[in-house]
Amino acid sequence: MSGDHGLRVTVPAALHALQANPRLYLYLVGDEPAIQAELSRHPCDTLASRFEILHAPYALAHDASLAQVLRGTPDSSMHQGLALVAETRAHALVSAGPTAALLALGRQVLQMLPGFKRPAFCSAMPVRQGHSYMLDLGANVDCSAEQLHDFARMGSALVCSLHGIERPRVGLLSNGQEDSKGNAIIREAAQRLQLDSRLHYTGYIEGNEIHQGELDVIVCDGLLGNISLKSAEGTATLARELIAEQVRSTRWSQLLGLFAAPLLRRLSESLEGERHGGAFLLGLQGLVVKSHGGAGIQGFAAAILQATRCLEQQMLPRMAHYLDNQEVI
Amino acid sequence: MSGDHGLRVTVPAALHALQANPRLYLYLVGDEPAIQAELSRHPCDTLASRFEILHAPYALAHDASLAQVLRGTPDSSMHQGLALVAETRAHALVSAGPTAALLALGRQVLQMLPGFKRPAFCSAMPVRQGHSYMLDLGANVDCSAEQLHDFARMGSALVCSLHGIERPRVGLLSNGQEDSKGNAIIREAAQRLQLDSRLHYTGYIEGNEIHQGELDVIVCDGLLGNISLKSAEGTATLARELIAEQVRSTRWSQLLGLFAAPLLRRLSESLEGERHGGAFLLGLQGLVVKSHGGAGIQGFAAAILQATRCLEQQMLPRMAHYLDNQEVI
Repeated sequence: MSGDHGLRVTVPAALHALQANPRLYLYLVGDEPAIQAELSRHPCDTLASRFEILHAPYALAHDASLAQVLRGTPDSSMHQGLALVAETRAHALVSAGPTAALLALGRQVLQMLPGFKRPAFCSAMPVRQGHSYMLDLGANVDCSAEQLHDFARMGSALVCSLHGIERPRVGLLSNGQEDSKGNAIIREAAQRLQLDSRLHYTGYIEGNEIHQGELDVIVCDGLLGNISLKSAEGTATLARELIAEQVRSTRWSQLLGLFAAPLLRRLSESLEGERHGGAFLLGLQGLVVKSHGGAGIQGFAAAILQATRCLEQQMLPRMAHYLDNQEVI
Repeated sequence: MSGDHGLRVTVPAALHALQANPRLYLYLVGDEPAIQAELSRHPCDTLASRFEILHAPYALAHDASLAQVLRGTPDSSMHQGLALVAETRAHALVSAGPTAALLALGRQVLQMLPGFKRPAFCSAMPVRQGHSYMLDLGANVDCSAEQLHDFARMGSALVCSLHGIERPRVGLLSNGQEDSKGNAIIREAAQRLQLDSRLHYTGYIEGNEIHQGELDVIVCDGLLGNISLKSAEGTATLARELIAEQVRSTRWSQLLGLFAAPLLRRLSESLEGERHGGAFLLGLQGLVVKSHGGAGIQGFAAAILQATRCLEQQMLPRMAHYLDNQEVI
């Protein structure tokens, strides 16, 4: 039901994901008549045995208060979807629903991993080579140094589980390289990270270094993470628009643009993240992938397939194993 | 003397700026023998009557402590340069020197504008159309709501003085549009801005909206501003690299790249800011433009010419007039 475009995006995205991965089975959690109506617009007979609809008539409003979310809505599609995961009937939830509601309900229904207090949004950033994961991207506006420390451990476990890197390199987002940079909380977090022998902490990282891909994990509070991610997205969009404008400006460049079109498409996909799928809601006892509210069919399908890949790679059990078996030296 | 490249950049940049603007007169403040040596490598006889060297043998180290900066260094080139402005022998200082030192010495030597407590770095951002100025870009890591309010007023005065916009649109950088977003300080600042009838406050702005150019002034603390600006720069660099890589990948795209080269150069200039010059150190009783430490000849020359244009436009007197003549309705 979720996201800016609702079923018009999520239903065809689900069918697209089913086609792309024959091992996938989906619950479509939402208002059954509306889902049926949208399904009738797409040919999906061959896929019908691989999904079922779970009727949840109520979709959480984008501006629902936390009290509403937590108390009054056991039949909301988000709550039902999380319950499926909590009851191990489903292995993961993919949602483009309201962020604050997903956070609050996720903690309530799935519970936190032992030893962690707050979940964080974590996503792969577009980088030159390899993979850099950044967290928190907006779950927690205010973070203590202890939370930032937790994020470093969760991020390291994620990278190890997905990419087999034993000692992921961890950086702390700040406004300069020197120890004196950052605010009091960032400086305190730096000390904690430095003292934790389980982590491969490499120091502060500046905003312009994120995309160089020299770190595996970049840690920050949710406010900085949100601003950094969205500033990068806005620049990517501007780059695409500037190129498109240049291409339109003369006949000769129109011709050039015709041939350069695939290049430009790849560029914007690389930078703007539609292909990258969603963000993990890390720290919960269950796999939750949050797709961008504004995601299109391709973006939401990418989020579903991302969850599938993570399940195939045993992401959560491996993360738990990593966290349990690290010894403080 | 300043910046990562020292006189190798600043001297040819100064000559370049003198050539570009025949009304410009420059003091080259630094170690005279070293400046003479660098000058001897460039043909500049025709310009010799339009600059003079002011001998200041000591350059502040990048890692000089604030105590060192403020107490022990009246003969540092930065101190001498600021003194020239304070004594009205020069109309502006352009420096690529250490940021913290420039802030501390700037406040000490030039004094703050009446009614303002802390200076802020302010720069024009690359936007789709027009001009958007963002502040603070890194002078103040921790800001109170009152300071953010001051920045909104300083930024509005800047935009009015440079672009003649009577009621510049002001936004506050946050992690969402809703009133509930931001941290406690951002929310308090929003209330202050809303209540100040002198300002045309339009609400929160997200990171991905900065580059759309729909606001004249974007206000944030120096930590968020630094991270946002550098995240955007990093993405622009990545975009340029991705394009260059694509262009190199096949013979056909090499040919394309040959013709697309000017387009790519314009793109990277638009986004990466080398052409944009420096950042204003706003709030002081004197014009100070801070060039990027890593600026090349073109970048440092752009900062000098930016200062020149601002002087020609009477930026500081106009800002003072704007601030003095606003009535709280």
